[in-house]
Amino acid sequence: MAAQLRADARDNRERIVEVARVMFARDGLDVPIREIARRASVGPATVYRHFPTKEALLTAAFADEMALCSDIVEEGLAVCDPWDGFAFVIARLLEVHALNRGFSRAFTSEPAGLGAERDRSLRGMLELIRRAKDAGALRADFVLEDAILVLMANEGIRADSPQQQAAASRRFAALMLQSFRPDPGGAPLPPPVRLPLAAR
Amino acid sequence: MAAQLRADARDNRERIVEVARVMFARDGLDVPIREIARRASVGPATVYRHFPTKEALLTAAFADEMALCSDIVEEGLAVCDPWDGFAFVIARLLEVHALNRGFSRAFTSEPAGLGAERDRSLRGMLELIRRAKDAGALRADFVLEDAILVLMANEGIRADSPQQQAAASRRFAALMLQSFRPDPGGAPLPPPVRLPLAAR
Repeated sequence: MAAQLRADARDNRERIVEVARVMFARDGLDVPIREIARRASVGPATVYRHFPTKEALLTAAFADEMALCSDIVEEGLAVCDPWDGFAFVIARLLEVHALNRGFSRAFTSEPAGLGAERDRSLRGMLELIRRAKDAGALRADFVLEDAILVLMANEGIRADSPQQQAAASRRFAALMLQSFRPDPGGAPLPPPVRLPLAAR
Repeated sequence: MAAQLRADARDNRERIVEVARVMFARDGLDVPIREIARRASVGPATVYRHFPTKEALLTAAFADEMALCSDIVEEGLAVCDPWDGFAFVIARLLEVHALNRGFSRAFTSEPAGLGAERDRSLRGMLELIRRAKDAGALRADFVLEDAILVLMANEGIRADSPQQQAAASRRFAALMLQSFRPDPGGAPLPPPVRLPLAAR
């Protein structure tokens, strides 16, 4: 009986996460908890028992995407050439984020509810930025906020299909990467802006 | 009596346009007509009598912004140096669009309902692009879609206040402009993507 209850609870939890994953990805982060509960055929109280906050639910719903981002950053850090590693990470992150608007919005929001894993990714990004600057391959006035700016901007791109979305993001990423190169003759950039994102 | 009726109709029309302008700017283009009618204290039928389609309402609501964009393009075309003219237009359009998400979404959507005025702006953009390329100041593989891509991307940027939004857009514009410069040593860009936008 207790085992059955535990199995039911586990099934409920999995169903809630699955529904949340689909709804956040499709409709963004404003989906009401009661709507997620309804589609998962549970009461709102059951959702809150498993996930006391929306952040907890976001973390569970986007665990795979967040892990993928961390892997991408790790892979970039393992590349010998600092610019190649940095460029690989920017291009891949934009591609992954382009196909999941809800995840991208969570990643670039504060509080994101993606917790320690996102912080780890951002620390990896900072290291990639440092190395690429030291190599003289990345403009000296580049800051982490510029990477967030580009991820946000990527969210604004709309195309007619996931394939076109990914293709548009690839072109956008290639353009952005050129803009991140040192520009000795260029005018200084306007100052960076503190964006709604906490972790450093 | 007839004059009074005409005056009432004119007042209704102005109120509808004013409400639509505020709601589209704040909530995007998905605001239901019945909601606009309710806030303007008229029936939906009155809205439809003045504006048979949502496109007609968009055109009226964003007439000022659209005229401003046309003026910006005209001003850019009057600049002697082709790159300076092009860069001025990109930077100013991003600034204007950053402060009105609803207008920006309408401008980059199909059908936009911004009609002949938008088409005129886009034709002006094409001329700016042609001149800047002829001067060797703009990368040869730049296409009009890239300008639309950047306007869309600009919509994705979120900051905590209109001032920060404008500042973030300025930095973004400066980065994008560097990316539009010829890049003799660079790899070719991934191909452009047909974006949801009609007029040529």
